[in-house]
Amino acid sequence: MAGAEELKVLGTRQSMFTVRVLCALDLKGVDYELVQEDLVNKSSLLLSLNPVHKKVPVLVHGGKPIAESKIILEYIDETWKQRPLLPEDPLERAHARFWAAFIDDKLMEAARKAFMTTGEDQAKAIESTMEALELLEQELGGKKYFGGDEEIGYVDMVAGWIAYWLQFVEEVGGFKAMDAAKYPCLDAWIQNFVHIPSVAQNLPSPDDLRDIFCAMRMAMATQTK
Amino acid sequence: MAGAEELKVLGTRQSMFTVRVLCALDLKGVDYELVQEDLVNKSSLLLSLNPVHKKVPVLVHGGKPIAESKIILEYIDETWKQRPLLPEDPLERAHARFWAAFIDDKLMEAARKAFMTTGEDQAKAIESTMEALELLEQELGGKKYFGGDEEIGYVDMVAGWIAYWLQFVEEVGGFKAMDAAKYPCLDAWIQNFVHIPSVAQNLPSPDDLRDIFCAMRMAMATQTK
Repeated sequence: MAGAEELKVLGTRQSMFTVRVLCALDLKGVDYELVQEDLVNKSSLLLSLNPVHKKVPVLVHGGKPIAESKIILEYIDETWKQRPLLPEDPLERAHARFWAAFIDDKLMEAARKAFMTTGEDQAKAIESTMEALELLEQELGGKKYFGGDEEIGYVDMVAGWIAYWLQFVEEVGGFKAMDAAKYPCLDAWIQNFVHIPSVAQNLPSPDDLRDIFCAMRMAMATQTK
Repeated sequence: MAGAEELKVLGTRQSMFTVRVLCALDLKGVDYELVQEDLVNKSSLLLSLNPVHKKVPVLVHGGKPIAESKIILEYIDETWKQRPLLPEDPLERAHARFWAAFIDDKLMEAARKAFMTTGEDQAKAIESTMEALELLEQELGGKKYFGGDEEIGYVDMVAGWIAYWLQFVEEVGGFKAMDAAKYPCLDAWIQNFVHIPSVAQNLPSPDDLRDIFCAMRMAMATQTK
């Protein structure tokens, strides 16, 4: 049954990066197979398809692998034109890419540090996380979604982990940065975002997320001196 | 004379990120004004146009600012269609974006660490830098440019700092990672790349680069305990 157009996603719904891709494919109405990966024991198929980063997700389209979730989202948007994820206008596209990069490079990096550290280092990382959340709050402003009031797009998909994963990152990491009272626009966005069918059907269970984040904390504890 | 289509680049040729943008505009044959920025004393105009990152380059097109060099390259390619920088095929585009992200996120990050550290930390960072160079060597293979044998494209522009800036990073940072004998394809690419007119005319003088990297080392020394 394998053909040129066979479409697989190597990943797991525990991974916020994988869910970006599943959500995008579901929004486009494209059929695919999710090939489950175990994040603590990655398959040789995954390692052979993404030898540089050895990470999920990998989209395999007609036998060709594409790695890195934001790059996969652009590939999906360029390959299946229905229900665009990015706006059409070059300036608006640049704006969307800017905030998507900010979410991954600044906010996620700060939250990752808050998760990985304790004491003074963690306090600094929480402060950076909150500064980044404040900038996102301003960017969102009164809009329902990052892409506007109508429907979710590229930036919402990239920001998706803030809506669901972050609470478990905070719980397992023993810190709190997302504050509904401080970031009311972000809080309203979260409530709207998690109830969108193509999002809701791809969210992992709380227990699955607690499991993976606890495993990550354990791995970090054995790696650090 | 200011009009809707007025095009300015805030930046300096000392900045490898700025030169990516200048090179792309020159390849496209688009007229622009370079508004010189002093990297150690940034203008209030720059800070107001890129308040999130406070970094060069910023492209200002018809009064609208676009920041982040790879995002600017995509904007340029989408706005001026002549002489494409990215390939047309979605899979090849994903491939180009993958290696551009690798160059910035893995190779540059490793070289930055090698520049900023000493002793054991520096030795590790040099090793990471060389591993990343080896992967790029394999990706380049027998091709003249990253985009193929014909002409430079998006990945070449992003990789441009390896061809010219890296030698001064190494000199000021007191390390050596790029080795012509170990990476002959990369070495041949460097020789070809720096002689392309749209590249050559935008390269800063060696003294200008030594000045800026020495200033960065000095600033780091005062910041670290």
